[in-house]
Amino acid sequence: METKSENVCFGGMQGVYSHASAATGRDMTFGLFLPEEARDGPVPVLWYLSGLTCTHENAMTKAGAQAWAAEFGIALVFPDTSPRGEGVADDDSFDMGQGASFYVNATQDPWAKHFRMWDYVTEDLPELLFEEFALDPERQAITGHSMGGHGALTIGMGLGSSRFRSISAFSPMCRTMDSDWGTRQLGLYLGEDQDAWTPHDASHVMREKGFDGPVLVDTGTADQFWDKLKPGALAAAMTDRKQPGAFRLQPGYDHSYFFVSSFIEDHMRFHAEELYR
Amino acid sequence: METKSENVCFGGMQGVYSHASAATGRDMTFGLFLPEEARDGPVPVLWYLSGLTCTHENAMTKAGAQAWAAEFGIALVFPDTSPRGEGVADDDSFDMGQGASFYVNATQDPWAKHFRMWDYVTEDLPELLFEEFALDPERQAITGHSMGGHGALTIGMGLGSSRFRSISAFSPMCRTMDSDWGTRQLGLYLGEDQDAWTPHDASHVMREKGFDGPVLVDTGTADQFWDKLKPGALAAAMTDRKQPGAFRLQPGYDHSYFFVSSFIEDHMRFHAEELYR
Repeated sequence: METKSENVCFGGMQGVYSHASAATGRDMTFGLFLPEEARDGPVPVLWYLSGLTCTHENAMTKAGAQAWAAEFGIALVFPDTSPRGEGVADDDSFDMGQGASFYVNATQDPWAKHFRMWDYVTEDLPELLFEEFALDPERQAITGHSMGGHGALTIGMGLGSSRFRSISAFSPMCRTMDSDWGTRQLGLYLGEDQDAWTPHDASHVMREKGFDGPVLVDTGTADQFWDKLKPGALAAAMTDRKQPGAFRLQPGYDHSYFFVSSFIEDHMRFHAEELYR
Repeated sequence: METKSENVCFGGMQGVYSHASAATGRDMTFGLFLPEEARDGPVPVLWYLSGLTCTHENAMTKAGAQAWAAEFGIALVFPDTSPRGEGVADDDSFDMGQGASFYVNATQDPWAKHFRMWDYVTEDLPELLFEEFALDPERQAITGHSMGGHGALTIGMGLGSSRFRSISAFSPMCRTMDSDWGTRQLGLYLGEDQDAWTPHDASHVMREKGFDGPVLVDTGTADQFWDKLKPGALAAAMTDRKQPGAFRLQPGYDHSYFFVSSFIEDHMRFHAEELYR
């Protein structure tokens, strides 16, 4: 593991590190905020998965999460959104390839070699984090924005409450199996057999499995990508399943980080309640 | 005036606008956050001046100020740090020319034509703002970071308490007349007669004039530019003058926005107390 930068922040430390990842076969960069409580022993951790075109950096600099992570004594992990660099497959469009992993383990060429972000986020990076830092593996929660909201929901429900105590999402892609932000990409990553896609459609997983813990979703009513996100599918699935939690619509807000930062306090409080239960 | 973007944020509106500036002779871009209280009438306003290499955008996305501006009902103005674009003089170094105005009215060629940022911030932009938006000219305060901290201090003290109720600064350049971040640039902008420099040296102005209101300065003890900022000169000047306010050193913090965001709540509370007195 290599330290790229460390900045004192809200009494804790905002670090950026890179490490050789077995899952993706590439060096991966991630951000980690440790509150000052981590000096005295393991702290709970909130995973933050970012969206299309993002790196580990966007949420780390723009979401304003550290203020509340410091307040509540919670660590924040900001993984990158895909493998990158020479030899890693890519696509000309912003919504496929580097920066657009959709958090799947690709099975199709040329993606299968490096695009194993599900394993990276659920196995590879946790292994490193809990070995290197004062983090408590028994107290994890997950959130994310846009494609990262999709990742938080699918990974959160996929691994279930034995891994995560709570799940939240900002402006998530809710129905990848029926969206321009989903069908093309899942086809390329996973092949045409749609059975392989179902674990990567948040509304499908919600309907089939749900989550044994609370789920909080926020979407802005002025979201410019509303038609691609398909929030109605997730709201219906949560309701039909009687999923504990809330699906909230925030009037006038769009898809930007100005939306995320406006409600990050709410999400941090929501997770803190579970992480310190 | 042209609207570049508007995003709902913390119940208010984060806008970005451009306008033809008489002072600089160029189109200038600025950010403006209006809290929701601005719908009902004029609100107080805090000016935020940014540092070397920054645009209107850095603080707007990374400082986390909107959370507290919304809490206290204060507008935030984020001017650009210099004129830009074709026909505007520039320099190869990052600390001179575009992105590095030092908030002076240049008198020397080739800078004199467009680099009139003192006038831009004190006359041109205020005129537009108070005409176009629900802002109260009787309740203004000013802050900034690095070269913007220098700008906040020199402009704040220069115009005095009839314009600004309070002044604060993060990691300001304190002694431009004796620093690599100052002497070369003031020479190029203002000529070799150092009498013309004195209004643009925060420690000098503090010593000679001070401010009839409170001044809050925060600098990190791990600031990587400590030697260029010369904080000791300002601390001594504030103390010798018995300037009301505080010069604070924050242990372990550096020059980054992770520092600014960590203490923005303090600064917003400090200004709110004066703006709502």
